[in-house]
Amino acid sequence: MSTAKPRTPAGTLELLPLDQIAFQDMLDTIRRNYERFGFLPVETPAFELSEMLLTKSGGETERQVYFVQSTGSLKRGEAPELALRFDLTVPLARYVAEHEHALSFPFRRYQMQRVYRGESAQRGRFREFYQCDIDVVGKDELSIRYDAEVVAVIASVFRELAVGRFTIQLNNRKLMRGFFERVGIADVEQQTLVLREVDKLDKRGADYVRRTLTGEGFGLPDERVDEILAFIAMRSSGHAHALDLLAGIGGGNAQLESGLAELGEVLRLVKAFGVPESAYALNFSIARGLDYYTGTVYETILDDHPQIGSVCSGGRYDNLASHYTRSRLPGVGISIGATRLYWQLREAGLIGTAQSSVQVLVTQMDAGLMPVYLDLATQLRQAGINTEVVLDSGKLGKQLKYASKSGIRFAVILGEAEVARSVVQIKDLAKEEQFEVPRAELVKALRVEIEQAQALGELRRGPRGAQP
Amino acid sequence: MSTAKPRTPAGTLELLPLDQIAFQDMLDTIRRNYERFGFLPVETPAFELSEMLLTKSGGETERQVYFVQSTGSLKRGEAPELALRFDLTVPLARYVAEHEHALSFPFRRYQMQRVYRGESAQRGRFREFYQCDIDVVGKDELSIRYDAEVVAVIASVFRELAVGRFTIQLNNRKLMRGFFERVGIADVEQQTLVLREVDKLDKRGADYVRRTLTGEGFGLPDERVDEILAFIAMRSSGHAHALDLLAGIGGGNAQLESGLAELGEVLRLVKAFGVPESAYALNFSIARGLDYYTGTVYETILDDHPQIGSVCSGGRYDNLASHYTRSRLPGVGISIGATRLYWQLREAGLIGTAQSSVQVLVTQMDAGLMPVYLDLATQLRQAGINTEVVLDSGKLGKQLKYASKSGIRFAVILGEAEVARSVVQIKDLAKEEQFEVPRAELVKALRVEIEQAQALGELRRGPRGAQP
Repeated sequence: MSTAKPRTPAGTLELLPLDQIAFQDMLDTIRRNYERFGFLPVETPAFELSEMLLTKSGGETERQVYFVQSTGSLKRGEAPELALRFDLTVPLARYVAEHEHALSFPFRRYQMQRVYRGESAQRGRFREFYQCDIDVVGKDELSIRYDAEVVAVIASVFRELAVGRFTIQLNNRKLMRGFFERVGIADVEQQTLVLREVDKLDKRGADYVRRTLTGEGFGLPDERVDEILAFIAMRSSGHAHALDLLAGIGGGNAQLESGLAELGEVLRLVKAFGVPESAYALNFSIARGLDYYTGTVYETILDDHPQIGSVCSGGRYDNLASHYTRSRLPGVGISIGATRLYWQLREAGLIGTAQSSVQVLVTQMDAGLMPVYLDLATQLRQAGINTEVVLDSGKLGKQLKYASKSGIRFAVILGEAEVARSVVQIKDLAKEEQFEVPRAELVKALRVEIEQAQALGELRRGPRGAQP
Repeated sequence: MSTAKPRTPAGTLELLPLDQIAFQDMLDTIRRNYERFGFLPVETPAFELSEMLLTKSGGETERQVYFVQSTGSLKRGEAPELALRFDLTVPLARYVAEHEHALSFPFRRYQMQRVYRGESAQRGRFREFYQCDIDVVGKDELSIRYDAEVVAVIASVFRELAVGRFTIQLNNRKLMRGFFERVGIADVEQQTLVLREVDKLDKRGADYVRRTLTGEGFGLPDERVDEILAFIAMRSSGHAHALDLLAGIGGGNAQLESGLAELGEVLRLVKAFGVPESAYALNFSIARGLDYYTGTVYETILDDHPQIGSVCSGGRYDNLASHYTRSRLPGVGISIGATRLYWQLREAGLIGTAQSSVQVLVTQMDAGLMPVYLDLATQLRQAGINTEVVLDSGKLGKQLKYASKSGIRFAVILGEAEVARSVVQIKDLAKEEQFEVPRAELVKALRVEIEQAQALGELRRGPRGAQP
């Protein structure tokens, strides 16, 4: 029989089991922190009705959409009725509008699912990737305090992910627009275009932004561009410095003053949420390309790996779901692109291959003792220890090699001699040590070994391992 | 602005948050048990290359495939290069073949992801649904003992799902073919066709099967059909009875004897795995429609809800991935259709709406005390308690109503009077009781309350809640 060379589609990240465990641990950490702050899980179908997903305006992301069609529909030459979601925000808008009367507001949801984009194929660009989003959606209004809570959630997630120092960079769209207005850019459309250029500062540098803003399209005078560049270059270091920076900006118009007040309130509450001041800073060049942000905006960078770019971004918006409902639904939210984050961290050497989720391998010295092996394994599992039993026959050395290669820490060894003496051998494959315990004490002994190794950080704590 | 009526595509199951929590608890229970038995996680992309997914033969499931196409590809009128997976078995075959040299065999993987089928739209039929699969895949050979382990896993999962009594029904394809051979149906093709009819016994009844087998297509003599019907009507009750039934069948040809030996070995080991004998039985009408099963086959029914049909099925196959590799990869596996199972259990009233994953709501009596509320919330979260803080202003009564409606068990209440006395009020919203504790003891008091409620089964144990 001829065979087809097995391969995955371009732009997808498929992992070997031990890497999948590492990735799963990352997702579980994110989920645990989202739940800790009171966010509720939502999942939506991978595909939506095309008419729901695609608006008439159709931004860049919408042009990357994947359409879905059944065999029958394809044969009949119909237009595709379905399309894969390209983010979790449009499905959230549809979800909240559809279930509006069944939900409690402020509605706090998290969603961790894959999204799909027909990106051009290149290294590090994914066509299928996990997004991990939280949003708080209010009805008619939503306190600015939630903008501060989101910062506390981001800080909690990244602290627990243990990927080194990070900074949550804060800005406010009103403050930016108010500032532009003060320097003479009154037209809202032009403010948006300038914002978009300002956002490129960290990537393209000040000279690029200066050339663009003084160039043909914008034609701003040099001194105005100087003023803008000086403004967007501001960064705070520490909480008091951030408040000082805000105080130094001064007022001049309602937008600017509103933005200053919001950002000040967010800063004060972020501190009250117990977020360490090294974890957040003002950065007036953060604008976020998406037009629907109207107030606070966030980007998060890893201090020692700035080249990775923002690992968690989001902001405040005025109205989530105007396409689907007349209710006004303001909200604030952020998104972690987990697939890209995992891939980047692995490339940077910050994430390695995980240990196995299997903690113990019960080896097979003598097929006649199978009932004993199975009984021991059952006891270990009942004690919450993830246990594999060797059921195929084979040499003990080969079995231990399998355990090592598979990242399993402990092996249980037992032959006729041990049975006669009511003992078992435990082999610690990391320490290359072997010791004997009475058979009745196997479970207790392994529990102690596992807990010690976990306490020393030598052994993975399964997030689901603790359950009885 | 005109709005589009928000709706999900037909054949998808989208849940409100508290139902999503109940569903997520079910998935977590399945995952925990899969890991307990040493299975490793794998995830594959939702879409595969069409050429990988679709074989030339193309069974019924393949005709239900959803094709995926980017906007550009659709415009150019190209044939779709991608298709959504319709099960997890074909992706497993592709995965094992693709990563063969990086995997350890026997390879034990679990996979819990959504699959897609262009089913005709009707109640209870899903176009998108979760499958939760385990498979053990050997290289060249795989001991029959794994067929027994799979039964132990199923029993462990369904015991912990706590959905009442269940029976894992066992049969063996070799035994069936050997039996057909003994009654004179020697042709392998015809054996397959008879198997397919026999599989309909439980759904359509004996008369239907008799009519079909004596009718035009098959034309089997009455007495032979009697013999077949008597055989497939056999059911065991208890372990000893199952072994007796096997002993009573007698031999006659190699297939039959091989099937009898395998089934006997599986039964004996299932017992050694500690599976209670009420949880498994022989059922000689179980055939499983899929042609690739070659030995043991499984179906699982809920004893008090037989109308739901099989909630977990699978079997042994000779060669997993002949389309992609020349290596011989025998295996055994099962699948739980979790979306359908959840939906059916809910319809049958066996699953209700979960309590919230949020355990505590810190209410807001006085906005001026916000720093105190935030500090208490931080303390609770650091102690592993999922905590929401009311950040919008509003009346206390409305806040408590929100907690009740949202399924949150405890509210923390604190105003100027409590601050002055260094105490806080805890309200148990289930018991409608309120009591006071010293502020310094809030965390400890709530921990005790939560643990007690969990011990009494009144409060959900978050599977990820235990993590520090």
